[in-house]
Amino acid sequence: MYLHSKNIYTPQGFQMGYLKIENGKIEGIFDEAPIGDVIDYEDKIIIPGFIDIHIHGWATGSFAHEGTVESVQNMSKELVKVGVTSYLATSGTNSIDEINRHLCQGRIAIDNWSPDKGAHVVGFHLEGPFINKEFKGMQKEEYCINPSIEILENFFGKAGKENIKLITIAPELEGAEEFIKYANKEDIQISIGHSAAEFEDIERLKDYGLGGFTHTFSGMRGFHHRRLGVAGAALYFDDMYAEFAKQTGMTVKPQAFKIAYKIKGPEKIILTTDCVGLAHVKETFYHYIRKCTFIPDGDYVKLLHDDGKEERINKNDYEKVKDFELGFLGSVKNVVKNVQASISDIVKMASENPAKYIGVYDTKGSIEPNKDGDIIVIDDEWNLLDVYVQGVKQNIQ
Amino acid sequence: MYLHSKNIYTPQGFQMGYLKIENGKIEGIFDEAPIGDVIDYEDKIIIPGFIDIHIHGWATGSFAHEGTVESVQNMSKELVKVGVTSYLATSGTNSIDEINRHLCQGRIAIDNWSPDKGAHVVGFHLEGPFINKEFKGMQKEEYCINPSIEILENFFGKAGKENIKLITIAPELEGAEEFIKYANKEDIQISIGHSAAEFEDIERLKDYGLGGFTHTFSGMRGFHHRRLGVAGAALYFDDMYAEFAKQTGMTVKPQAFKIAYKIKGPEKIILTTDCVGLAHVKETFYHYIRKCTFIPDGDYVKLLHDDGKEERINKNDYEKVKDFELGFLGSVKNVVKNVQASISDIVKMASENPAKYIGVYDTKGSIEPNKDGDIIVIDDEWNLLDVYVQGVKQNIQ
Repeated sequence: MYLHSKNIYTPQGFQMGYLKIENGKIEGIFDEAPIGDVIDYEDKIIIPGFIDIHIHGWATGSFAHEGTVESVQNMSKELVKVGVTSYLATSGTNSIDEINRHLCQGRIAIDNWSPDKGAHVVGFHLEGPFINKEFKGMQKEEYCINPSIEILENFFGKAGKENIKLITIAPELEGAEEFIKYANKEDIQISIGHSAAEFEDIERLKDYGLGGFTHTFSGMRGFHHRRLGVAGAALYFDDMYAEFAKQTGMTVKPQAFKIAYKIKGPEKIILTTDCVGLAHVKETFYHYIRKCTFIPDGDYVKLLHDDGKEERINKNDYEKVKDFELGFLGSVKNVVKNVQASISDIVKMASENPAKYIGVYDTKGSIEPNKDGDIIVIDDEWNLLDVYVQGVKQNIQ
Repeated sequence: MYLHSKNIYTPQGFQMGYLKIENGKIEGIFDEAPIGDVIDYEDKIIIPGFIDIHIHGWATGSFAHEGTVESVQNMSKELVKVGVTSYLATSGTNSIDEINRHLCQGRIAIDNWSPDKGAHVVGFHLEGPFINKEFKGMQKEEYCINPSIEILENFFGKAGKENIKLITIAPELEGAEEFIKYANKEDIQISIGHSAAEFEDIERLKDYGLGGFTHTFSGMRGFHHRRLGVAGAALYFDDMYAEFAKQTGMTVKPQAFKIAYKIKGPEKIILTTDCVGLAHVKETFYHYIRKCTFIPDGDYVKLLHDDGKEERINKNDYEKVKDFELGFLGSVKNVVKNVQASISDIVKMASENPAKYIGVYDTKGSIEPNKDGDIIVIDDEWNLLDVYVQGVKQNIQ
């Protein structure tokens, strides 16, 4: 299959030509009109698909709330509609049993995934349970525990060791140093998040394997000039990545993001959504940022807004639930508006950097020969026109 | 008079030649060996003298503590020893009567100053009294008041309107908007300091005449991603100057300064010392950063350190008191070490920017024809070799 465009974005810049994808892989970009199927995108823009390394759930599926094979399959199916072609199913801080159950189910989804099923679930991100209660955010306090290699090995048994790509921990907790060293040896990326760490803790531990920061600025103290903390470390260390979850403007103000963007640049920022699949809460859940209580009700979810407004919504109806949270593409559009990010900037933050960060840049994150044919086609206003996962055209309606 | 060097720093870069100073003014840099007095500095570096726009006192004199003509004269005499060739005598937050008395005395010092007396006192910086008690720092809480044009006009009567160059205020206080507009009309620069302002307050008021931030990060809340405050505004607004007081590493950690430096760049940072002349306290004074109590004792000052150590020091002995506080040159050396600042970077932060900020760049802040012959000679390790104020060589021993 060939996709033709005047604007194919590669790490060497924009190229014009015929992008050949065979057997799910990119073969290259060719100048001459080929014999065979060509889809002509004319002056539309072809870029690598987005990779969301921090997403618990989306629209009709929630790995963190439901923890079922189907929930992951639903995420895959819907994520392509917002430009995501691969992701890490992200667990929350929960009981070990519950996390293990989720990992087992997630692994089945991973093993049974095929490109006709939507976005590629390339593994897991464990957000906790090794985090600090003091900055639990929306994680469950009672399950925040110290880092434990034993528990991690237990997770390996359920998830498949190779599937655990990223773990968010609080490095000030007891046992963190050994844990970080161990994870590093196992090629698992470690992010700092939900943490009360001091700047000096991070300075001491980073070279053992602390690569970056989970939802930078959230789940940590503010930056202070005598106590820089996690936020200060995120701004200070040029070689560490700062993940920013969906840019709604509600959690991190656009101006705060812009400050971080000025310092880190697109080279060291990773865009994610941290979406949870709000329609699928299992218990009544108060969302303090949205000022709304979500109440599960069979196939429905009831929303009680602080302002008194009530809604009852079918949780399996994509059109009805897709606006519960800002999706990846919407977040990208906000970033473009806020910091005047170019296509190249966005590709770095949404595709290249996350792929490098979780160690899959050999197969994903850019349009280059021998990489997966994970491609999205956009116009110059970031409207999504087509999505391919390993060369398979997706249903994005 | 001619100063020869291979390294004369000008806004156009380094030049080699004969720097001619006549009648206190720079005439230019000439290629040909002149007839007349030439001092040959060979490969030593000639740069404009430092301009300290935030200094209450230094070594044997304290404008803020003593508030006498002599205190300002002592400051002038000693400041050249740390590379400062001009400065703003900076008042503290005090009773209106006391501030008025200080301004009267300071004005006499200004009117009677001549270049053989040391650093040029080009005017006043009023640090308060229009500041917020909540972030008073070492200022006196009982004298923190709302901005008042009437009181400012009263100060004009004592200080001479043209001598008030800079005022630090908390822009969230009642009356601030009118005050800022008025000061702006009178060509007085306004800095934000000792302030609990919200980011949005500053966003709304800045174009009325808020130019920058006094001792950025100190006297304000830490930066938070949903409540950016004054610190966030300092990092966010590219067109505003961030003043940083002496870089001891005690008030603002070097890493915090480095973060600000990465964002603002040397173009928008102003180095000052905020020295107070600690030897000259009038009342027992506990310095919470230095963890030491200063007790006035006639011509002496007693130091009671928190660790139990006691000292009794002659407050008029420069050698004994000069290390009470880190002087301008010492601060510059720390900045050079911390952020690998070049000579050009330091000249911007220590000479050009402060001159521009307080509106005296037509006569000071750079080595250019028709400007004052305020010159310092350094070696490549920032050791001070000679100092000239309006062409008059100073005693820096």
